[in-house]
Amino acid sequence: MAFGWIDEQDRARREAGLVRVLRPRPADSPLLDLASNDYLGLARHPEVTEGAARAARTWGGGSTGSRLVTGTTELHTELERELAGFCGFEAALVFSSGYAANLAAVTALAPHGSLVVSDAGNHASLIDGCRLARGTTQVVAHAEPDAVRKALATHDGPAVAVSDTVFSVDGDAAPLAALAEACREHGAGLVVDDAHGLGVLGEGGRGAPYAAGLAGRDDVVATVTLSKSLGAQGGAVLGPARVIGHLVNAARTFIFDTGLAPAAAGAALAALTLLRREPERAARARAVAAELHARLTASGLAAVRPDAAVVSVRAPSAETAVRWAADCRTAGLSVGCFRPPSVPDGVSRLRLTARADLSGEQIAHAVRVIGETRP
Amino acid sequence: MAFGWIDEQDRARREAGLVRVLRPRPADSPLLDLASNDYLGLARHPEVTEGAARAARTWGGGSTGSRLVTGTTELHTELERELAGFCGFEAALVFSSGYAANLAAVTALAPHGSLVVSDAGNHASLIDGCRLARGTTQVVAHAEPDAVRKALATHDGPAVAVSDTVFSVDGDAAPLAALAEACREHGAGLVVDDAHGLGVLGEGGRGAPYAAGLAGRDDVVATVTLSKSLGAQGGAVLGPARVIGHLVNAARTFIFDTGLAPAAAGAALAALTLLRREPERAARARAVAAELHARLTASGLAAVRPDAAVVSVRAPSAETAVRWAADCRTAGLSVGCFRPPSVPDGVSRLRLTARADLSGEQIAHAVRVIGETRP
Repeated sequence: MAFGWIDEQDRARREAGLVRVLRPRPADSPLLDLASNDYLGLARHPEVTEGAARAARTWGGGSTGSRLVTGTTELHTELERELAGFCGFEAALVFSSGYAANLAAVTALAPHGSLVVSDAGNHASLIDGCRLARGTTQVVAHAEPDAVRKALATHDGPAVAVSDTVFSVDGDAAPLAALAEACREHGAGLVVDDAHGLGVLGEGGRGAPYAAGLAGRDDVVATVTLSKSLGAQGGAVLGPARVIGHLVNAARTFIFDTGLAPAAAGAALAALTLLRREPERAARARAVAAELHARLTASGLAAVRPDAAVVSVRAPSAETAVRWAADCRTAGLSVGCFRPPSVPDGVSRLRLTARADLSGEQIAHAVRVIGETRP
Repeated sequence: MAFGWIDEQDRARREAGLVRVLRPRPADSPLLDLASNDYLGLARHPEVTEGAARAARTWGGGSTGSRLVTGTTELHTELERELAGFCGFEAALVFSSGYAANLAAVTALAPHGSLVVSDAGNHASLIDGCRLARGTTQVVAHAEPDAVRKALATHDGPAVAVSDTVFSVDGDAAPLAALAEACREHGAGLVVDDAHGLGVLGEGGRGAPYAAGLAGRDDVVATVTLSKSLGAQGGAVLGPARVIGHLVNAARTFIFDTGLAPAAAGAALAALTLLRREPERAARARAVAAELHARLTASGLAAVRPDAAVVSVRAPSAETAVRWAADCRTAGLSVGCFRPPSVPDGVSRLRLTARADLSGEQIAHAVRVIGETRP
């Protein structure tokens, strides 16, 4: 039978305890959320949801076409101007997802004959970008600028180094300044995914490239998501106008995808307005992460020191990690559980996100639950 | 300089007259729209925009995480149940875009050692899915079931044939029943992208697989977009529960992407409700397409007979196609302009979409403008 081979894979997954299930949440979930990427607690903020609702009423439920046909509205242009301005880049281009933005940036900037140097810990979307790109990819050791330098030295012609700014699994930051230096030495471009940096790092949440003094440079491109700190959906590429113009003409996930829905653009715009007005939200997210880490460590748990708003706690095995997360959930706490094949090193973890709107009491409660349920 | 090579490509593009520009539209554009994929005219329907607004208010501006972490809400589940039921499939899985849904379906159903037989006219997202898949791809002649049969005969092991149901460029339909027959003979699965069929083809707009009697079969998988007839954003894979469960566990654009924004899910749900209540919308879109084609042909224009709601008109060259579309725009008519590299055969066209809500007067006016501006 056509898809009979799936049953065998399914059986193997079940035996390994690696079956994933969807757990639909109600609108008024009673769980304390330390699992989402809603770092600033803006997804349910009335200004953000009202921004979404107003945009849908004004512009429609969808953008109706490719950005190159009917899918670009003045709302998209406004969002692109605001995003570029906020993060300190010359120009921006908005996509229907961060995944699509990453596929676009990597494929369009790695033509035939070029080299892509990719960090071993990069996000799946960057990896898929490398696989789709016409250039050659060389994967280098995690967060090692010298490895990037060495790889670039072997190549003649266009080259880019590609890295997350904050790695999703452990929440550690890339050595951006050193990476940029290595790239500059070899005339290579640097493409960084700031999905977990925007809204959390840099003055007022302007992101990791801004914090590292790299925003606006002619050899640096950043991608961001609108679906994490900005509480919406979508992604964007930020960079020199030359690069953005090139993406409009060459990026398949831009040309052949329907434009971002107006509601998502409206929500992201409202969130950016909030961030400008309340720049302390970013620092608060970092402070919550530091407090979470300190309390977890004080409880004897193997938490990784956070560079942004992700706090990772090692678990003994995939099975115990799953049970640990389930026990937290039973106790009213929602935490992420990362395990193979979603982790690069085979180590399963709980993944906690430090939302800016968590109170000290909520943090203490969360750490208590995690400690009491530890395997 | 890092991205200096882009300037050269840009120059070549300019010289060839192939530079693409974004043309942001205002909310109250005075243009008559024959360019969008809003086939049923639902993107601005008050029930659809209200569905988006209500969902944003109830569920938030974004879904806050991967569908496997916090990104699945009861709203997503409801949409999946409705979509599967409407189109006649056992189960459905919603993605942030149709592009992501196609990448997921092809990659997850084409494991190592498998064969993918792909129609030469397939959409970019299916092609990228083939390129990302671990299986081997064989591209076959456009809309030729015998070529699919021949390709499948050469392979032992899991195999799928992949095709659009309605091809975006010329609006022609795939020979679905014959494709399914070829696949069944060889125990292969059939994966079809019904982006341009849903809402237009089949009883009440249930789509091309439904119309061909293929919906719900254990060897047929369909993908759809929520951003065309449903006036929202997103995509979905429809198929046997076994396949959908497999995608949850294996599809990278599902696992590593933020879930669809609630507003888009709410808009799509409202559109589905409208389609059930007003099934005549689908037939009306087809009637508009037939009338457009008849009137264009009567005016001596080289229009391709439409199988759905896309009407393609050949242009002498890329330059004349661009000028033709620009002249239509000056005369108040928005039409699509497809040219290399977005066309598989190098032939530039105007691409018209037959919206169900166009009046006879608007159709006559559009054809008059197209005829008067012909190069």
